[in-house]
Amino acid sequence: MRVAQGRDSVLLAVKPTQAQAPAVGVNVLVVYHSVTGNTEKMAHGITEGARSVAGANVVLKRVGEVVADDLLASDAVIVGSPVYFASMSGEVKTFFDNWSLKFGLFRELKMRNKVGGAFVTGAAISNGKEVTMQAIHAAMLVNQMSIVSGGGAFGASATTGPDSPGIDEKALESARALGKRVAEFAAVTKRGSRT
Amino acid sequence: MRVAQGRDSVLLAVKPTQAQAPAVGVNVLVVYHSVTGNTEKMAHGITEGARSVAGANVVLKRVGEVVADDLLASDAVIVGSPVYFASMSGEVKTFFDNWSLKFGLFRELKMRNKVGGAFVTGAAISNGKEVTMQAIHAAMLVNQMSIVSGGGAFGASATTGPDSPGIDEKALESARALGKRVAEFAAVTKRGSRT
Amino acid sequence: MRVAQGRDSVLLAVKPTQAQAPAVGVNVLVVYHSVTGNTEKMAHGITEGARSVAGANVVLKRVGEVVADDLLASDAVIVGSPVYFASMSGEVKTFFDNWSLKFGLFRELKMRNKVGGAFVTGAAISNGKEVTMQAIHAAMLVNQMSIVSGGGAFGASATTGPDSPGIDEKALESARALGKRVAEFAAVTKRGSRT
Amino acid sequence: MRVAQGRDSVLLAVKPTQAQAPAVGVNVLVVYHSVTGNTEKMAHGITEGARSVAGANVVLKRVGEVVADDLLASDAVIVGSPVYFASMSGEVKTFFDNWSLKFGLFRELKMRNKVGGAFVTGAAISNGKEVTMQAIHAAMLVNQMSIVSGGGAFGASATTGPDSPGIDEKALESARALGKRVAEFAAVTKRGSRT
Repeated sequence: MRVAQGRDSVLLAVKPTQAQAPAVGVNVLVVYHSVTGNTEKMAHGITEGARSVAGANVVLKRVGEVVADDLLASDAVIVGSPVYFASMSGEVKTFFDNWSLKFGLFRELKMRNKVGGAFVTGAAISNGKEVTMQAIHAAMLVNQMSIVSGGGAFGASATTGPDSPGIDEKALESARALGKRVAEFAAVTKRGSRT
Repeated sequence: MRVAQGRDSVLLAVKPTQAQAPAVGVNVLVVYHSVTGNTEKMAHGITEGARSVAGANVVLKRVGEVVADDLLASDAVIVGSPVYFASMSGEVKTFFDNWSLKFGLFRELKMRNKVGGAFVTGAAISNGKEVTMQAIHAAMLVNQMSIVSGGGAFGASATTGPDSPGIDEKALESARALGKRVAEFAAVTKRGSRT
Repeated sequence: MRVAQGRDSVLLAVKPTQAQAPAVGVNVLVVYHSVTGNTEKMAHGITEGARSVAGANVVLKRVGEVVADDLLASDAVIVGSPVYFASMSGEVKTFFDNWSLKFGLFRELKMRNKVGGAFVTGAAISNGKEVTMQAIHAAMLVNQMSIVSGGGAFGASATTGPDSPGIDEKALESARALGKRVAEFAAVTKRGSRT
Repeated sequence: MRVAQGRDSVLLAVKPTQAQAPAVGVNVLVVYHSVTGNTEKMAHGITEGARSVAGANVVLKRVGEVVADDLLASDAVIVGSPVYFASMSGEVKTFFDNWSLKFGLFRELKMRNKVGGAFVTGAAISNGKEVTMQAIHAAMLVNQMSIVSGGGAFGASATTGPDSPGIDEKALESARALGKRVAEFAAVTKRGSRT
């Protein structure tokens, strides 16, 4: 039996029926862009958190490596970006643009009902991390995905500038919490979508 | 068998298993603030859409009438606000503030995993409707609710100023689509949370 | 003497001293990305509005054509983007990323105090136009530019989808209002920065 | 002569003409809501920063104490809010709503061209501070004020939760930088608006 630790485990503590539900296989796709390695470290934390959920199959890819089938095969997608000038990097935005331009996912809403989450890294506090997570969420909502937070009010985030400790244990804990949260919620929606 | 009409029905068309799943009772709370009557008309459309989902029990209340038990009893909450200076009205914000100050829902995350949606009315196009829906979503995400859109990229909206037709059939269709979408998704998550 | 027409002319009506101030040469850079031609049409409206201000020198360029000197020579920059998945297009984001990566403008805050404005086109109402203008503003604020709206609550916008009239006279009026507003405000700040 | 220290002083370093411009009297209104005292401490820092600018006359008030004449007499307004559920508190929102409902400032755009800034306090990192500053900016942009940042990408902010140092010297430095920035920019626009 799982022991609830911290806010992100409250669900399991207060809604035991959900924790006891039989494991269902969920495919979680973790996608990121990273230049300095910070967002990549967070992506590994996300992956670790998602893998801690029974039945979760987690795929980790850089934005440029993702193909349409990766997205189609997923039950949940967690997208991570560095914050450049208070929004997602051009590469991450191009990845989303490709959902329409290249992957043909938008017109028939092929991503509908998949679960989405966001994580970010930025050099300073309050320098655009929140609005970048909101922008990732917005792209997902337009595709009629459902959104959950985890590891923070909007998602997982880390401050990586000279004044900060970089990707420390606290940031990784936030990342793992988001990964776990998204995988758990994807399991709920997958079970609930079965006849 | 349901016939898919428009984008918001695509799910039923492409994922028949979900539509065929046995009905589950879901409690949908529709909450709004309205001075001119526009947001109230939208609230009625939301309610109508939610009620079209088998098993849905829909409660419609003004923000000032809601008590903690209304929120606790709900599986989904859809909040509507007029746009005042590009964000939710002070009354709607105060309603959310009360989730912590008065209703005691936040500390133990008692709203966690309930489904959330947003609808708004504003006098002009691009005058704050989107960011108001985002702010409603943000308040819900902080409480670890899950979010879906419906009836529009972020939720249901209507332009009500002198240059617009007011709450016309198109606006009501958007409202009904959001109500239906949230109720359906709440049924999915409720089924999926059972053992 | 100018006749005040509509909200965007109120300034001239109520603060005659400003309108009577001697013309000062201001360089306005209008930058846009356009695939279908809609955002380009808006860019022409912006340009026309800016040119209506005495002393304004307006340069119109596509995002890919802009070089560092265009930005350095400007007193004001107005950036336009189509809305792709509720935020600016990857190309416009890459343009902003280049302020740091390629143009070397960020580290020494070389854009500081220049005036910024935003315009957008999107297929549907409330589909991300506001948050895209906010994201453009945010990139500018990070560079310590000052921001003004005009032609709408956040900036100039047009809905271009099948249900809309496309770039009609009303949309162009919004574009011209933004161009005029930014050029006028840039003249104010330029005059005020002189000894 | 002033010595440039840190990013917020770059302007003075690189554009000496502006610093040497004759002092112009500017009225800066600092408005805040505070329950725990954190936002009030930041408000004092803002005030201190604004007062460091030659010619600045700074008035500090709680949201509930502000009357229309305070706003009308100001050349710049800096608004501070605690972050409640990822947006401004109901009291701060009600303050803005009153610009239309009670103070009669909106219809004739009586706040137009005044300079605006925002500051916030929140319990956790990335819990809504950015989007709250954006919402304050949006209310100002709707009123056709101009916006500047300072002390951070969007404005001045402080994290005040149990894991944080509260309003420490770094937070106060951010507050002072915003106050100084807004007062300086208000002087520029006031000088530039004269004949």
